[in-house]
Amino acid sequence: MNDCDNAWYRREGIALLTDFYELTMMAGHLKDGRTEQQVSFDYFFRSLPTHTGFAVAAGLDCFLSYLEHLRFTESDLAYLKSLEVFDNAFLDYLRNFRLRCAVRAVPEGTFVFPGEPVIQVEGPILDAQLIETALLNMVNHQTLIATKAARVCLAAEDDPVLEFGLRRAHGPDGGLSASRACYIGGCASTSNVLAGKVYGVPVAGTHAHSWVMGFPSEIEAFRAFARLYPDRCVLLVDTYDSLKSGIPNAIQVFLEMRDQGLNVRPAVRLDSGDLAKISKICHAMMRDAGLDDPLIVASNDLDEDLIADLKRQGARINAWGVGTQLITAYDAPALPGVYKLVAIKTDAGWQSRMKVTSNIEKATDPGRKQLVRYYDADGRPLGDMLYLQEENWPESGVIEGRSRKNPHAARHIENAASAELLLEPAFENGRRVRPARPLAAVRDATLEQRNRFPDEYKRLRNPEIFRVLLSPQLGEMKDAMLMNPESAQ
Amino acid sequence: MNDCDNAWYRREGIALLTDFYELTMMAGHLKDGRTEQQVSFDYFFRSLPTHTGFAVAAGLDCFLSYLEHLRFTESDLAYLKSLEVFDNAFLDYLRNFRLRCAVRAVPEGTFVFPGEPVIQVEGPILDAQLIETALLNMVNHQTLIATKAARVCLAAEDDPVLEFGLRRAHGPDGGLSASRACYIGGCASTSNVLAGKVYGVPVAGTHAHSWVMGFPSEIEAFRAFARLYPDRCVLLVDTYDSLKSGIPNAIQVFLEMRDQGLNVRPAVRLDSGDLAKISKICHAMMRDAGLDDPLIVASNDLDEDLIADLKRQGARINAWGVGTQLITAYDAPALPGVYKLVAIKTDAGWQSRMKVTSNIEKATDPGRKQLVRYYDADGRPLGDMLYLQEENWPESGVIEGRSRKNPHAARHIENAASAELLLEPAFENGRRVRPARPLAAVRDATLEQRNRFPDEYKRLRNPEIFRVLLSPQLGEMKDAMLMNPESAQ
Repeated sequence: MNDCDNAWYRREGIALLTDFYELTMMAGHLKDGRTEQQVSFDYFFRSLPTHTGFAVAAGLDCFLSYLEHLRFTESDLAYLKSLEVFDNAFLDYLRNFRLRCAVRAVPEGTFVFPGEPVIQVEGPILDAQLIETALLNMVNHQTLIATKAARVCLAAEDDPVLEFGLRRAHGPDGGLSASRACYIGGCASTSNVLAGKVYGVPVAGTHAHSWVMGFPSEIEAFRAFARLYPDRCVLLVDTYDSLKSGIPNAIQVFLEMRDQGLNVRPAVRLDSGDLAKISKICHAMMRDAGLDDPLIVASNDLDEDLIADLKRQGARINAWGVGTQLITAYDAPALPGVYKLVAIKTDAGWQSRMKVTSNIEKATDPGRKQLVRYYDADGRPLGDMLYLQEENWPESGVIEGRSRKNPHAARHIENAASAELLLEPAFENGRRVRPARPLAAVRDATLEQRNRFPDEYKRLRNPEIFRVLLSPQLGEMKDAMLMNPESAQ
Repeated sequence: MNDCDNAWYRREGIALLTDFYELTMMAGHLKDGRTEQQVSFDYFFRSLPTHTGFAVAAGLDCFLSYLEHLRFTESDLAYLKSLEVFDNAFLDYLRNFRLRCAVRAVPEGTFVFPGEPVIQVEGPILDAQLIETALLNMVNHQTLIATKAARVCLAAEDDPVLEFGLRRAHGPDGGLSASRACYIGGCASTSNVLAGKVYGVPVAGTHAHSWVMGFPSEIEAFRAFARLYPDRCVLLVDTYDSLKSGIPNAIQVFLEMRDQGLNVRPAVRLDSGDLAKISKICHAMMRDAGLDDPLIVASNDLDEDLIADLKRQGARINAWGVGTQLITAYDAPALPGVYKLVAIKTDAGWQSRMKVTSNIEKATDPGRKQLVRYYDADGRPLGDMLYLQEENWPESGVIEGRSRKNPHAARHIENAASAELLLEPAFENGRRVRPARPLAAVRDATLEQRNRFPDEYKRLRNPEIFRVLLSPQLGEMKDAMLMNPESAQ
């Protein structure tokens, strides 16, 4: 299974996954003869969820798969015709449509921050417009969930986090894509078998209450499960009463297994009640019965804050099943990523453009840009700088910049020892530039980023804000456009 | 397009959309010879999102489509074999798998409440277990979003609500399924063209900031759009400055259209700033220019509370574009629906089962049930009652019952004039019982329910709790099982 290429949603019929206005705008540009008008768009998000200090870039490879397979079928065209909005010239144009955009992007698994061009799309305006919605859909969603997963894994410290959110996910793909993103963010496994097949995410699971309720008694249910799956026997102990029934029955079954000469790790799952207290009692009961080093899995609406609090209370839990809160990013279930025109090609060359509005927060950073990350001598990230593409940029020392929100104000990054270009060519001439990385490699990249970034950006509350600056030249251009909106037009 | 049948996700390869533990439990039941063990499961949700007084049932038809197409492919089986958990006997069983469950369900578009069996699945335990995850996934999600949409539409009163959330949805299907659910809940249209094609939802849209930024000036962009789409010309006025630039330019273009003899409704979209104030000024500016009855569409992170507040302020807005908050059900992005074993067939007939746990909130209502809604003489719903299937139930008068949470406590429904069975046969012998209804008919059903239910259940804050009771016989059974958990086993 090579990553996204087996995802069902890259099949025929995906071209209409777009907002209607993209098509009306495309038809307008075609009619007015702007098929060769070259433009440049940036994808970026304006803010992070509350309490969150970083985002984990994710979703890019799915977007590239979509780009590779982007064709309008006859059935798509028949539907569009039925709307009685588009003329035959436009439908013929779509029939022969082959994407001519180039994409540069920050690789999946990279930590990214508000205002950064995580993906850049350049090409004819019709093409760049068509793909806006799918880009936003896939990248906003997976970046959101990978980020949430990274936070949950940070809270769990070195314990494995088992994602099992499919039943509360936003539809079949809200589960499938999210399981992929959770694995990128650091989860150890998913319950979603389809995500296992399509993306190669390791799958895992225990059993349900219904398994216990389907037997005449709890202990018979446990014995049956132990007999069937001695090597993966995690017993769910709260169907009737964890302390009085479930845990004693589980202990008895693990002792019976040991008497039969089976050398298995005793393992239970707690799914309700006071997890801190019950896990400690459970651990003591198992140890007193001679069952050392038990695996105690906890679940029940957990998120990063509950896990951190259970850790603080000394809960004897060493694996975490996380569902609803993770798969939906419950406390902030959307990433406000946008896709904005930053430059347009004229006879005089590329001209920078900017959305001004009365709200400075919503003003965009104009121009075709590059994104450079500076590191200190120990390889720890210091800050990021947006340069215009034609600019030269320093590799080290004191790096001069401007504030993104107040571009007349000078800011700088000190003690830079090295620098890295984050945007890489990803898609050209209708093809990916390189094959998709295996998902496990993307996950490793996330974990490597996690190790590189200092703790202050990763804490669960009031994280330090990572510095993202404009180059002096870009800052001056933005400031001038803000002062004189006519120049942005 | 007939509803769900063209949805991409009902295609080949959907059988693995399940939690891994469903498969391990199935394999266990097969190995132990329980292939003919008949069981009965209920789908219900334990609570509603905060402030929400009702839920709109949705997602059933997608679930039925999934059931109809549920087959394991050779590629699915090869993947499962690669996990080295399942033996060949189980893989052969899956190869020949044909679903033998029967499903009864409350029709889509019906108002439903916590604790009600919205869907019942009955059949062999292996079959009933396999389909748990997909049922929960599809029905939890769509019911959540249809409910949110109904609240947004209630806040908008008689104004159309235009859903355009795809870019912030949870992946491609998190958008597609949600657009379907939004339409069921009462939205007028979607921006998602694929939802238009697959589900027949009306599609609509305006233009983006990038349209404006792609032209040398705002007014040229507006003129071009008006020339291209005179009949659907809604001009987005906030790319540079709504009051100083966007609205005056829009007015000029609509006046020019009128001078050309085009009789179109002047229409603008406001997407930032103080929507209450700007909409009033915009309305006055347009009217002063001789443009009567303008359509003013507002967008920008709207939800039901903001819409209600804008209405309260007398905003001159008459159509509402709602995206992020609706498509993700932002303030409560998961419905906690569950699927619980309620009965098991033994040689002595059906025996009721119950999950007890120490947490009374998580205790289930045992037994195979029917769900009856009582109405007053004016046809307004009074309350719902759960009866055991073998019970006779009264049609009118004072209806005796028991509290669901304290089943020893008597409760009743007074002045019942008529009664209605809500659960209908939906799936038998591997087929739907009846063809899927057109989505517009489902939407009509929701609107009819909305008209039937008194206001106190529909308000946006502190809604009255709709009464859901157990029959005396069911209440006594539940009470006895709670008192003596052994009897629940």
